[in-house]
Amino acid sequence: MPPKRDQTEPLDPRLVFGRQLATLRKQVGLSQEALALESGLARSYLGGVERGQRNIALLNICRLAVALSVPPSKLLETL
Amino acid sequence: MPPKRDQTEPLDPRLVFGRQLATLRKQVGLSQEALALESGLARSYLGGVERGQRNIALLNICRLAVALSVPPSKLLETL
Repeated sequence: MPPKRDQTEPLDPRLVFGRQLATLRKQVGLSQEALALESGLARSYLGGVERGQRNIALLNICRLAVALSVPPSKLLETL
Repeated sequence: MPPKRDQTEPLDPRLVFGRQLATLRKQVGLSQEALALESGLARSYLGGVERGQRNIALLNICRLAVALSVPPSKLLETL
């Protein structure tokens, strides 16, 4: 049986953010590369964000939101 | 007559975030000092965030949200 995750321990916000970003990006039908181009962020940086390895800051959150045509708060909706 | 702000030019996201943070903090009835203590962030850093001088990152947004008892997305609601 796989170990159960402790329900009282929240996931790392960077992971939750990365998953939500990937979900929204796919909903819009963009590849990581296309979103990188659209937002002006480096493709490798974007990959790190989606994998939860980056502590993304406000201005980059807003750049991604503009590129995805969603309000910035939508990217934090699952947190 | 004061110069009109161009309606098509959005405010800097750091300023909008800082105003929303100050609004929510006051709604909860916390001083900057109390919020700093509650969130574990430095008071001077928090002041800079509220003045729109800091590009706050995800983990600190989440720390402030926990301290204010609001979802993190609430802090980006006005963006």
